[in-house]
Amino acid sequence: MRSSRLTRLRADAAAAGIDAFVVTHPANLRYLTGLKASAGAVVVTTERCVLVVDFRYVTAARQLAAEHPELSVFPVTAIDQGIADVVRGSQALRIGVEGAYLPVARYNQLSRLLASDGDMAATSEQSQPILIPTERIIERARAVKDESEIAILREAARRISAVAREAPDLVRVGQTEQQTAALVESALRAAGFEAFAFETIVASGPNAALPHARPTARMIAEGDGVVLDFGGVYDGYCVDLTRTLRVGQTSAEFCRLFDAVAEAHGAALAAVKPGSSAVDVDRAARDVLERHGLGEAFGHGTGHGLGLEVHEEPRISQTASAAEMLVPGMVFTIEPGAYVPGIGGVRIEDDVLVVPGGCEVLTEVPIRL
Amino acid sequence: MRSSRLTRLRADAAAAGIDAFVVTHPANLRYLTGLKASAGAVVVTTERCVLVVDFRYVTAARQLAAEHPELSVFPVTAIDQGIADVVRGSQALRIGVEGAYLPVARYNQLSRLLASDGDMAATSEQSQPILIPTERIIERARAVKDESEIAILREAARRISAVAREAPDLVRVGQTEQQTAALVESALRAAGFEAFAFETIVASGPNAALPHARPTARMIAEGDGVVLDFGGVYDGYCVDLTRTLRVGQTSAEFCRLFDAVAEAHGAALAAVKPGSSAVDVDRAARDVLERHGLGEAFGHGTGHGLGLEVHEEPRISQTASAAEMLVPGMVFTIEPGAYVPGIGGVRIEDDVLVVPGGCEVLTEVPIRL
Repeated sequence: MRSSRLTRLRADAAAAGIDAFVVTHPANLRYLTGLKASAGAVVVTTERCVLVVDFRYVTAARQLAAEHPELSVFPVTAIDQGIADVVRGSQALRIGVEGAYLPVARYNQLSRLLASDGDMAATSEQSQPILIPTERIIERARAVKDESEIAILREAARRISAVAREAPDLVRVGQTEQQTAALVESALRAAGFEAFAFETIVASGPNAALPHARPTARMIAEGDGVVLDFGGVYDGYCVDLTRTLRVGQTSAEFCRLFDAVAEAHGAALAAVKPGSSAVDVDRAARDVLERHGLGEAFGHGTGHGLGLEVHEEPRISQTASAAEMLVPGMVFTIEPGAYVPGIGGVRIEDDVLVVPGGCEVLTEVPIRL
Repeated sequence: MRSSRLTRLRADAAAAGIDAFVVTHPANLRYLTGLKASAGAVVVTTERCVLVVDFRYVTAARQLAAEHPELSVFPVTAIDQGIADVVRGSQALRIGVEGAYLPVARYNQLSRLLASDGDMAATSEQSQPILIPTERIIERARAVKDESEIAILREAARRISAVAREAPDLVRVGQTEQQTAALVESALRAAGFEAFAFETIVASGPNAALPHARPTARMIAEGDGVVLDFGGVYDGYCVDLTRTLRVGQTSAEFCRLFDAVAEAHGAALAAVKPGSSAVDVDRAARDVLERHGLGEAFGHGTGHGLGLEVHEEPRISQTASAAEMLVPGMVFTIEPGAYVPGIGGVRIEDDVLVVPGGCEVLTEVPIRL
């Protein structure tokens, strides 16, 4: 399975005129090699695939290399020096790097390490490797999940749905947002998630009008709308779900907000199919909210890809490329919202898989206030 | 308080020949302005301090600006375009950016946005702003905590110490590492932490020989050594603590490992004082482990700074600059370890504050196997 990912990277890199690719972004490193590491690199040349790791990950890297003969391990104390050594040991001259992740200072340092050569006399200008910032080469491959990834995401979605169905029991008057977040996290752990995909959001009453509120010491009160947005990591893959609940009776304005967002959510789901673009899906949700006079209240995108990262491609937003079509195997969130100071906030989020002819909603939880 | 941070940034930037500074790293943004945002920027010129934020953070940014008249808010849909607009509206030409964080693709995009100007005729080469990647300008300021930060870190350390004292009750034979991690996290939440500083590590038996193990489904067994490494975020500030426990009787080799690491931990603590360097402190721990024949088994640094991030300056390692002295107000971890396949792993970690004449250990938990 990972061999095919390496094969694709080599083909995509070659198409971009690149001889070797240096991967340092942890999610891309894991995707290509299986290594779970917060630091380290893999250098992919036409011939080799070398894991450059320090002490912390040598054991794990060697275990992987034992299972995957195409991988080798280069243990180092300084990752960038190790990358430069591997690149210079190859014939590669045009070296791709991940433009969206490699910090500019590190890019400059790597460039210097590649340029400096003990044997200056033997080195002409032409034979110096140069770094080429690339965009979205591995990310685009990652956007379309293979069978093994879909199986994991389906199972993860099944588990987070079970947590969401319990959620109404976790929200109580007199309990703080932070305490509520702790209960949600305990439920995620009990459901078998190995980590949280992001900091759990519990936003109650007026706080729900902030789309990225963090849990506070505010006590949940009678009449509150409460946004619960939580995510779990299962076997490395992220799922993400939001429900908006109410405690007792909420205002009529709040109920109208809820109905409008639920309608937008349904419209976006209906728009998900191969051949639609991400912009079409976003537009479907946005049209509904604009018709309800809530265009301004919906300031974020309609969704984001899910996989080894909780925000990845495709982005379901107004600013996505209209030329990029959804294809079967893509997995992303659908999460329209509306935030109105004085009334509160509503967001409803599910996770979907694009399948031939439409979409499969991976999360299964009733939508009701 | 934040005014003095802006004043210092302006002085440090001016000393580096920089007219304006663009801050996009979330921890630096929060440090300077108080804004908690996963995206956004602050542009600090000699005259102004402009928060460039999108829809998600406009409300929060305006609240801050109402309290801090030196801040203004520029709401945008595209952050980088907004940064370019603010920079071009100023007289600044040499624009500092955070080299350690700004991805090279974004650096290139910002450069393009600054160079493109509708009114080309009026623009000579000399008047184009240029981006200058800087290193450690804000990070060095952040390394020395002020009184308000020390008060928060002291309280956070007190709370995480209470969790650590409970830890022996959370580790049970027949319980998986993942279940144990969930119990530790519940205890952190109950202790008032708003988030976890990193993914909790529970590494038992052979898994403890991996210094960055993640919790697995392995059941804790009689005779295991168990490394518990966990961190919490309190009022935005991170603390981090490790204890190694045993379940029943561990091997004699394991006990020797424990004693050696405990000795190294004590030696490092004793070396912490103003005028020592980070290298001296690392050396103190490393000497002890080398004397026990465990030099190779201790592959990571002795510690790292704590603050708005869980890994920040100062780095307590062999590769730190020997010329940089510890000064009162620095807060960091002391966490030597030794990892020996076949025997297991031990790490012991506390959080310290440099004070005149020595150090104050902020975490207070007995060290015993």
